[in-house]
Amino acid sequence: TDTRKLLVLPGDGIGPEVMREVAKVVTWLTAHRGLKLDIAEELVGGASLAKHGVPIRDEVIALAKEADAVLFGSVGDPAWSHVGFDKRPEVAILRLRQELELFANLRPAKVFDALLDASTLKPDVVRGLDIMIVRETVGGIYFGEPRGIETLPDGSRRGVNTEVYTTAEIERVARGAFDLARVRDNRVCSVEKCNVMESGLLWKQVVTDLHARDYADVELSHMLADNCAMQLVRNPRQFDVLVTGNLFGDLLSDLASMLTGSLGMLPSATLGAVQESGKRHALYEPIHGSAPDIAGQGIANPLAQILSFAMLLRYSFGREDDAVLIETAVSNVLASGFRTADIMSEGMARVSTAVMGDAVVQEL
Amino acid sequence: TDTRKLLVLPGDGIGPEVMREVAKVVTWLTAHRGLKLDIAEELVGGASLAKHGVPIRDEVIALAKEADAVLFGSVGDPAWSHVGFDKRPEVAILRLRQELELFANLRPAKVFDALLDASTLKPDVVRGLDIMIVRETVGGIYFGEPRGIETLPDGSRRGVNTEVYTTAEIERVARGAFDLARVRDNRVCSVEKCNVMESGLLWKQVVTDLHARDYADVELSHMLADNCAMQLVRNPRQFDVLVTGNLFGDLLSDLASMLTGSLGMLPSATLGAVQESGKRHALYEPIHGSAPDIAGQGIANPLAQILSFAMLLRYSFGREDDAVLIETAVSNVLASGFRTADIMSEGMARVSTAVMGDAVVQEL
Ligand SMILES: CC(C)[C@H](C(=O)O)[C@@H](O)C(=O)O
Ligand SMILES: CC(C)[C@H](C(=O)O)[C@@H](O)C(=O)O
Repeated sequence: TDTRKLLVLPGDGIGPEVMREVAKVVTWLTAHRGLKLDIAEELVGGASLAKHGVPIRDEVIALAKEADAVLFGSVGDPAWSHVGFDKRPEVAILRLRQELELFANLRPAKVFDALLDASTLKPDVVRGLDIMIVRETVGGIYFGEPRGIETLPDGSRRGVNTEVYTTAEIERVARGAFDLARVRDNRVCSVEKCNVMESGLLWKQVVTDLHARDYADVELSHMLADNCAMQLVRNPRQFDVLVTGNLFGDLLSDLASMLTGSLGMLPSATLGAVQESGKRHALYEPIHGSAPDIAGQGIANPLAQILSFAMLLRYSFGREDDAVLIETAVSNVLASGFRTADIMSEGMARVSTAVMGDAVVQEL
Repeated sequence: TDTRKLLVLPGDGIGPEVMREVAKVVTWLTAHRGLKLDIAEELVGGASLAKHGVPIRDEVIALAKEADAVLFGSVGDPAWSHVGFDKRPEVAILRLRQELELFANLRPAKVFDALLDASTLKPDVVRGLDIMIVRETVGGIYFGEPRGIETLPDGSRRGVNTEVYTTAEIERVARGAFDLARVRDNRVCSVEKCNVMESGLLWKQVVTDLHARDYADVELSHMLADNCAMQLVRNPRQFDVLVTGNLFGDLLSDLASMLTGSLGMLPSATLGAVQESGKRHALYEPIHGSAPDIAGQGIANPLAQILSFAMLLRYSFGREDDAVLIETAVSNVLASGFRTADIMSEGMARVSTAVMGDAVVQEL
């Protein structure tokens, strides 16, 4: 049987409403392209907190491990920020990354020609921009121990987090970056803060050694994280693949994607190691967050979520044709002038989440 | 006597050549405005490593403590990156910040009208931009223990750094931000990553409590660091004062200053607590780094260093008139079309570091 197991986790905020548009695409592909999916859908983040009192249940983690791929929406509903650090909605995505060992988050920052106007950068600076940020996602300060808040004898408090990186953790994500570079423009820039942090110094050394050993054909450069933040604004097209740790990757990938002016358009993939069974855990999610400020209004852009599903079809299900079909449909819809609020510009037709989804299906 | 003690630390890279232009300004003010300075000049960074084998000598730290103000150039010559983590040029600025307890780094990101073209952002997005980033500079992951690289039994390695913030450390820098906001647009945005880091959660709580207690008249908002990186690109003018920790401040302030397109124009001040003597340690330095790629060519922009000296005259020496005099001279020089390479645009006159410095003195 070629039925594939898909776990759908819409999450909170705009997650559920953009995921609804993916369902339309799935229905169409099932009817017209012989796509056979065994779909389970579960609550995570704020939605799970509301029903089950936890951001993600162990059963859902287990389902994610069994699935051939996970399609994730977004989490971060601030309505739950009072429930305590262990029960915040974000724990859903953090636990998924860690328990499935999804260590490499691939975040493209790509400018869509039709949306060049949406960027706050000058068109000449970002035209044709095509960067891939490879962010480590199961290590670093996100998970390092010791961590926590302690109360001192005098009643004042002390907050602690620990950044830890090991040779193995750095190597596996760097491999991912070098491999990707080989099928792109063959250039990797490794980003850390080795002039201040020993963990960054180790990062730089391990990447340098791995490069010399196995990837000498790829062009490697190094950049300090503060300089990288500047260079992304000054001249973003100097980069091909960037590889960096969890925390720098969080800031720099969001920054890079915002350069395109179309955050609502950008999908991402988070990949684990290839297992003995040949299977590779993978989670796909839009780069945008749960956008609580516009949630429930039906105005969110569903294209990043739809394109995340296209990425999933390509990388986890080997359905390149279907992925291209979706991506072409999205391009055509943009070319026809359909715009959600986030990518609106003059002379275009402002449409709702649902109309945008329908338009994509129409184009399939 | 109204003679003030100034310690000048040019550093490495372009530091010495831009500092030379400040000397011209000092000479002019001494001759025409009755400025009385007792100036000591010392080597730090790569320059100190070359002569003394250390990035900064204890004598220099002692001189800095005695001085009424420190004018710093820049450090970071990569020629010294092999000498070991404890002996890298950057230790000079890190030790100065810590030993003088210079906990609040004030980094303006201000657009100069005459240089609007130099930004890679659209003019409408950055016109009139005027942000002040208040960055904590003696705590966080820059100084937290334990830290280091250890070799594990299997020969692999592990790099560790620790982010630590205490109530007191957060409060004093937040006070600085609130006080500043009161003489600006009365808005503070506090930036952390409280959805992932407990140290960020404590940061947010302490800022919130302090605000309720002493600064309820100031508008306070909170933002996650990744979102802040995005918002700085999407709509930077939404901000007035930003306050954040050492590491986020490093990236975000560099990012913010790059929005202006004129990094070579931006000064900064790093302030300590007011001491019993009424004296307050303070160090002034350009936001740009040591720019080893253009060092020694005589093409660096000296204006950030000159404007750092103007800030010093204003805040440490109470010489507002002289500060304004310098700032006006800089404006006039720009209006006359003088441009170093970094801020060059069509129809302007490209000049060297020395010519730019002479032009400022000419305008005084
Ligand atoms: C939701 C949050 C925990 C997450 C992160 O910080 O990794 C998000 O910002 C992201 O980048 O995917
Ligand atoms: C030189 C370096 C240690 C320093 C820092 O990271 O603080 C610099 O980048 C800065 O921002 O002043």
